Amino acid sequence: MDSIDINCDLGEGFGIYKPVDDAALMKLISSCNIACGFHAGDPVLIRKTIDSALENQVKIGAHPSYPDLQGFGRRDMQLSEEELYTNVLYQVSALKGMVEALGGKMNHVKPHGALYNASARDEAISAPVYQAIFDVDPNLYVFGLPNSIHESVATKKGLKFIPEAFGDRRYLSTGALAPRSMDGAVINDLDNVSAQVVSIIRKGKVNTLDDQLFDIHAKTICIHSDTANSLDILKTLHTVLRSHKIEIKSDR
Amino acid sequence: MDSIDINCDLGEGFGIYKPVDDAALMKLISSCNIACGFHAGDPVLIRKTIDSALENQVKIGAHPSYPDLQGFGRRDMQLSEEELYTNVLYQVSALKGMVEALGGKMNHVKPHGALYNASARDEAISAPVYQAIFDVDPNLYVFGLPNSIHESVATKKGLKFIPEAFGDRRYLSTGALAPRSMDGAVINDLDNVSAQVVSIIRKGKVNTLDDQLFDIHAKTICIHSDTANSLDILKTLHTVLRSHKIEIKSDR
Amino acid sequence: MDSIDINCDLGEGFGIYKPVDDAALMKLISSCNIACGFHAGDPVLIRKTIDSALENQVKIGAHPSYPDLQGFGRRDMQLSEEELYTNVLYQVSALKGMVEALGGKMNHVKPHGALYNASARDEAISAPVYQAIFDVDPNLYVFGLPNSIHESVATKKGLKFIPEAFGDRRYLSTGALAPRSMDGAVINDLDNVSAQVVSIIRKGKVNTLDDQLFDIHAKTICIHSDTANSLDILKTLHTVLRSHKIEIKSDR
Amino acid sequence: MDSIDINCDLGEGFGIYKPVDDAALMKLISSCNIACGFHAGDPVLIRKTIDSALENQVKIGAHPSYPDLQGFGRRDMQLSEEELYTNVLYQVSALKGMVEALGGKMNHVKPHGALYNASARDEAISAPVYQAIFDVDPNLYVFGLPNSIHESVATKKGLKFIPEAFGDRRYLSTGALAPRSMDGAVINDLDNVSAQVVSIIRKGKVNTLDDQLFDIHAKTICIHSDTANSLDILKTLHTVLRSHKIEIKSDR
Repeated sequence: MDSIDINCDLGEGFGIYKPVDDAALMKLISSCNIACGFHAGDPVLIRKTIDSALENQVKIGAHPSYPDLQGFGRRDMQLSEEELYTNVLYQVSALKGMVEALGGKMNHVKPHGALYNASARDEAISAPVYQAIFDVDPNLYVFGLPNSIHESVATKKGLKFIPEAFGDRRYLSTGALAPRSMDGAVINDLDNVSAQVVSIIRKGKVNTLDDQLFDIHAKTICIHSDTANSLDILKTLHTVLRSHKIEIKSDR
Repeated sequence: MDSIDINCDLGEGFGIYKPVDDAALMKLISSCNIACGFHAGDPVLIRKTIDSALENQVKIGAHPSYPDLQGFGRRDMQLSEEELYTNVLYQVSALKGMVEALGGKMNHVKPHGALYNASARDEAISAPVYQAIFDVDPNLYVFGLPNSIHESVATKKGLKFIPEAFGDRRYLSTGALAPRSMDGAVINDLDNVSAQVVSIIRKGKVNTLDDQLFDIHAKTICIHSDTANSLDILKTLHTVLRSHKIEIKSDR
Repeated sequence: MDSIDINCDLGEGFGIYKPVDDAALMKLISSCNIACGFHAGDPVLIRKTIDSALENQVKIGAHPSYPDLQGFGRRDMQLSEEELYTNVLYQVSALKGMVEALGGKMNHVKPHGALYNASARDEAISAPVYQAIFDVDPNLYVFGLPNSIHESVATKKGLKFIPEAFGDRRYLSTGALAPRSMDGAVINDLDNVSAQVVSIIRKGKVNTLDDQLFDIHAKTICIHSDTANSLDILKTLHTVLRSHKIEIKSDR
Repeated sequence: MDSIDINCDLGEGFGIYKPVDDAALMKLISSCNIACGFHAGDPVLIRKTIDSALENQVKIGAHPSYPDLQGFGRRDMQLSEEELYTNVLYQVSALKGMVEALGGKMNHVKPHGALYNASARDEAISAPVYQAIFDVDPNLYVFGLPNSIHESVATKKGLKFIPEAFGDRRYLSTGALAPRSMDGAVINDLDNVSAQVVSIIRKGKVNTLDDQLFDIHAKTICIHSDTANSLDILKTLHTVLRSHKIEIKSDR
């Protein structure tokens, strides 16, 4: 039986703000990426999210960000190499220590938002980011864009790279995600998300928004927790994948 | 030859603010307590302070605080038990992970400011604080007020309690520190600081501000880094302790 | 025809977090209290909330708080008189300037959460808070607890005090709100909220949780925007008040 | 007798951090730009700085910034037009209200750090920044780089533009400031600062770092308060300008 890892960014609230039903999503995924306090996530919420992941045997990753609570880590910020290195080191350390104190083990790291995108296109950014991850624990997996600077730099550092595809976003024939500003960039239709996910798993291909077939080899598939119908998407995906005899689980 | 541990709170700047010459103080002490980002300390400064401690073979502790950058952690805040537990868990975890990533080992924890004082007088506060420390690592030492709730709760949790005295502050006959608002509460005179420190080490006694002799058994002595002449105090202390054949070092 | 002012705390999101449908609530009230950035409210959201109030001809107030984003301003904090004065001065000034820049006029101020409660019971807290409001503009109205330190101190400062009652919370025979931890403290039932509001307006009385009749003379009634069914409460209230020939409007 | 306005950025501390002797500098300048809380400046410090400016009859300006306390507003951040507009609106409003509450009148606005530089080179950034200033008060002066996008956009918006030169920094023949990374970019020598200032005032020219004469017409000269010897620079400047019969004062 084939299997695939499904990951979600969780714990992305702050204080009284809990925009997403983390507990419900946690039952439907195999890996989660937990906000570390810099774009979202206060200590109470981080602990609650870790506890929930442990109960559901979901693999736990850190989801570090630029220090920008006001902008939810979605705005580019020009940090120095030392600032990048230490900001990631701090966040990944905080999450790792909490996970271990609560009886678990941290599995992976996936940078958030603007830091994810910037580190995928600029080695000067990904190098200190991945160095920090390596220095915390060289055995951590890193989730990132296949065939990007993510993959080359992570591999060069000696980290185990896990190529990630997106189930609820369309691609362009260049391999890039279609920007959210383009019509059709986000897939909300339950059948279309499922079809894209099955195609990625079984054929290693996606139909791009500009009508090409693009090769994509992914070992984890991200469903964005903050899309309006993320819970329905995941429920449908469960049914569809079961019917295709694909198990949702992490090999790691 | 007798010995004593001298500790300072370091890394208590933020961003461009570096009010104290941490590097100079680091050469004169045997233990440091590093701000974790909630009352002071950004990732760049935390890393720099850890590196400096490692170079100088100074024992490293975490110095967690209430989340209050504006008030430097000196204002009482009413946190729930869960907020106390997770805020300390987060900060101690962040520091521990950074210390280990940079090649060191965390030795101890000492709560900061209002959290130090509140946890010394209220078991409802010290219990979650010490539980968090224990859950991160039960082998961590905790620095605190002798014969206080610090000592009883830390011991009950199974943590190794290190009684702390203050070299640059006068005591009352109750054993409490004279509040900073009282005349003479802070000792700035170099000879008087030295005399008090030697008396604590050799006789286990201090002359209180209200003219009594008070028994105090301390295994570490704190010199506040943010008093104006802290560097001179530490230099004088070095000379005086050497003349008394007392070595500055940590046994831990 | 009788009339009553209905007020809501709005703009209590932050960044991407928008827990409440402010735009819908705004159509149903006559006064709003806008978070100023210290417990909630970022500049984009503040502006949006002001624009919405202006479109709906809703009176605008500032809703200043302790500086505690993590705790949503609900945690007691021990601020000095100067800290209280300047924190309120800053927040009320920011809101007033924005309202005026956007073409409106600020009408009132209502402290938030822990600051509301602390200033209702402690003159040492309410004095600097109301002094700051007075110094920004002595013509501002202040919303507060009737027959409390709010009323006496605001009046002493020369501010125009507007007594406030709560529609969705039960009272005790002491005149205090039943604490949220008591069974039945929050009224969710639409008819019961309406009945309490009508009783306050028409009879100046509430039935307390401990089965007494308590006199309460209010000129504004608060419905908490963050109760789950606040929108339904306000819609029902509109219908019920209309049937009682009570108009929702502010006289100020 | 000729005269010149000398401006300093003041109130650039935070909480316990007061890196500069604002009170001493305030006696030697005619205009100050006060940090508004986003890169530096807490409410207590802002109030203290305003009071000091009023005592010394120094003109008061707001010094708004990107929201980046960790980076002191010196890091580029990609804000949307709406984020730029509202972040500046909030900060300028807060400062204006406080100045007026404390008995003064706000005179001008000067963006800080990365926001100053970005708005000087990019109209998409300066347009919302200056619109916010205009909407708070169209009579506010704005200090900026002569012959830059600062000047053209501010003028287009109907704001009164005040061209600024720097006394303690060398220029390039392009008119740009030599970047701090270049040898000799910062002028620490007291005589050289004075000579450059006198040359700007009397001749409208500076000798550039690449040995050219460059025309510069400035109505205000900035001395950076955070250079190590800023107090000595200003004292020397006083003496030298007096000997040249140039008065330090603001015409506005």
